[in-house]
Amino acid sequence: MSALHTVVRAPLSPAENLARCRELVRPALTEAVGRTHPWVAEMAGYSFGWCEVGGAPATAPGGKGVRQALAVLGAEAAGADATAGIPAAVAVELVHAFSLLHDDIMDGDATRRQRPAVWKAYGTGPAVLAGDALFALAVDSLATAPRGPGAVRLLSAALADLVRGQADDLLFAARPCTGPERVSPREYRRMAEGKTGALLGCAAALGAALGGASEATVTALDRAGRRLGVAFQLVDDVLGMWGDPAVTGKPVGGDLREGKKTFPVLAALDSPAPAARRLHALLGSPGRATETAAPHSPARTTESTVFGSPGWAAEVAALVDEAGGRAAAVGEARAQTAAARALLADVPLAGRAGEELHLLLDHLMHRVL
Amino acid sequence: MSALHTVVRAPLSPAENLARCRELVRPALTEAVGRTHPWVAEMAGYSFGWCEVGGAPATAPGGKGVRQALAVLGAEAAGADATAGIPAAVAVELVHAFSLLHDDIMDGDATRRQRPAVWKAYGTGPAVLAGDALFALAVDSLATAPRGPGAVRLLSAALADLVRGQADDLLFAARPCTGPERVSPREYRRMAEGKTGALLGCAAALGAALGGASEATVTALDRAGRRLGVAFQLVDDVLGMWGDPAVTGKPVGGDLREGKKTFPVLAALDSPAPAARRLHALLGSPGRATETAAPHSPARTTESTVFGSPGWAAEVAALVDEAGGRAAAVGEARAQTAAARALLADVPLAGRAGEELHLLLDHLMHRVL
Repeated sequence: MSALHTVVRAPLSPAENLARCRELVRPALTEAVGRTHPWVAEMAGYSFGWCEVGGAPATAPGGKGVRQALAVLGAEAAGADATAGIPAAVAVELVHAFSLLHDDIMDGDATRRQRPAVWKAYGTGPAVLAGDALFALAVDSLATAPRGPGAVRLLSAALADLVRGQADDLLFAARPCTGPERVSPREYRRMAEGKTGALLGCAAALGAALGGASEATVTALDRAGRRLGVAFQLVDDVLGMWGDPAVTGKPVGGDLREGKKTFPVLAALDSPAPAARRLHALLGSPGRATETAAPHSPARTTESTVFGSPGWAAEVAALVDEAGGRAAAVGEARAQTAAARALLADVPLAGRAGEELHLLLDHLMHRVL
Repeated sequence: MSALHTVVRAPLSPAENLARCRELVRPALTEAVGRTHPWVAEMAGYSFGWCEVGGAPATAPGGKGVRQALAVLGAEAAGADATAGIPAAVAVELVHAFSLLHDDIMDGDATRRQRPAVWKAYGTGPAVLAGDALFALAVDSLATAPRGPGAVRLLSAALADLVRGQADDLLFAARPCTGPERVSPREYRRMAEGKTGALLGCAAALGAALGGASEATVTALDRAGRRLGVAFQLVDDVLGMWGDPAVTGKPVGGDLREGKKTFPVLAALDSPAPAARRLHALLGSPGRATETAAPHSPARTTESTVFGSPGWAAEVAALVDEAGGRAAAVGEARAQTAAARALLADVPLAGRAGEELHLLLDHLMHRVL
């Protein structure tokens, strides 16, 4: 084996791999977006960070591109050339962009990646339309790809799960923190699997399917991606509560103020530790969570623990940690990651792609684990 | 041939056919909607007229079901059993419901079929989600049907055209009535083909494809449906201006007040007739249409012709008629219908389906032609 071959076959670092896949997929993604109405294409371009409102070119942050990397690595894991995974990568990136666009409307989130969300910049109606366009382009990109029609079912099943997960996420916010109506950790995992895991699993599986992988490999990658998605969501919850806002780009305690039932909080509320009692009081009795818009907590408060204040968020975070919620979330994320690893180890993955998938998993979990 | 065979093979009337197809498709449509999240399924059921807010059963008007009938007739025209067209019928009805749901948000229409629109009844965010769910179910229904994966491209192409048509429809409202920036009748036809024609064409083509039709037949049905869609939109424009509100369910002049550039108005504005001059004054000079929300017209007005008043709408309608806008729209609808007929006559259509498609065309155009 020549030195050149050794260099070419050495696994890439996750950062190198993410950059390689973004570069590989970008022309096809640009071409796909360019197929829709120019006005809608501008909104889509804005959401990807390619342009400003009005169409002037920009290089705003557009996401790491984890989904497109999984699709390309999926194709390579099937022994195919990276290019075989491009239509899968385009489809999942378009679906991801669609879901962010519509989720920001549903959640009322005015900011996305340090810029006004599309609905804030262009209006709600146009943002609904732009999301629909990305959705349609995703299906169309896949339907016109070699081996694409046979793989559409992977995408449509993920889309259905995505909607179910988003529905649960919206409904969970109105559920009480305690009592029989509270959200269980099991329900949380199912929500996270739909909202985050389904598309990550679909990305790797779709890439593999276009690369000609066996059904067993496609299924294993789908399942591994779903586990990764749950782990990813758990890590996001932990970072949202204890992470550095300068790194996460989100205010500390934002989830709490929105009434989001994150896993650390759910686990802490279920804990027998004394800290859980004070936490119940701070987050309110059954039904409390339906009043998240109220300016003050019905529980006993001091000035520093007024509902939604920085002092309140800090105390909630400290109590969740003390009651074991942080450890439970990190433990669960580790378990989900281990399950993903086991699924990947169980099927033959060609070339360096298997190792690179493991490295990517490490990289994504490294943020807290 | 026995008397029984004669009875079975006689073409059904359009009303009988629409009812037959609704009944045939309903179980599969109900099953498809039942596959999504229960909360989302309730919103979908409400939009179909199957239930009230909260889930109590209802029998509210749910549309004639033209698209599902075209899908079933498409399958039969291919010589297949009606049941072969059911997955196509389900897919196009779900897409139609999705597009109504999201269009009502974009257009700010608070009422749909004499009931509050879904976004009014459930909120904008949930309505966005329900539309997304119907979209995902449509793709999934087709992807899991026999011969379905190979036909997904027909649906995804129609979805892309639907978005393009809706984008143009939204943008046309902001364009001036006169000058080089005005909407041309050609642009109008392209918009109507996307917004209304693409899905009607897709319905018949998809049914035929699932029924095993040749590519020539699938293409002819797609094109005929697109012509029918343009005719359909023209008829809607005419009825919106001169129809009986008790029959159309829409207020007379509603399109005008929303600044919609309907074909009769566009044709009248392009006319050399003297009435066109007064019409220009009433609808405003270039740029006028961007101010449709203004409570008064910048043109000279009398009390009875204040912008948006019933007197104003009646005078506009009379001037559009006088300038030949109504005749132009009816003539164009006739031409589009004739083109649809010619396309249908050009390919072999099995059994009674060909004749029934012609009868359905007559029935849909009968409203004004």
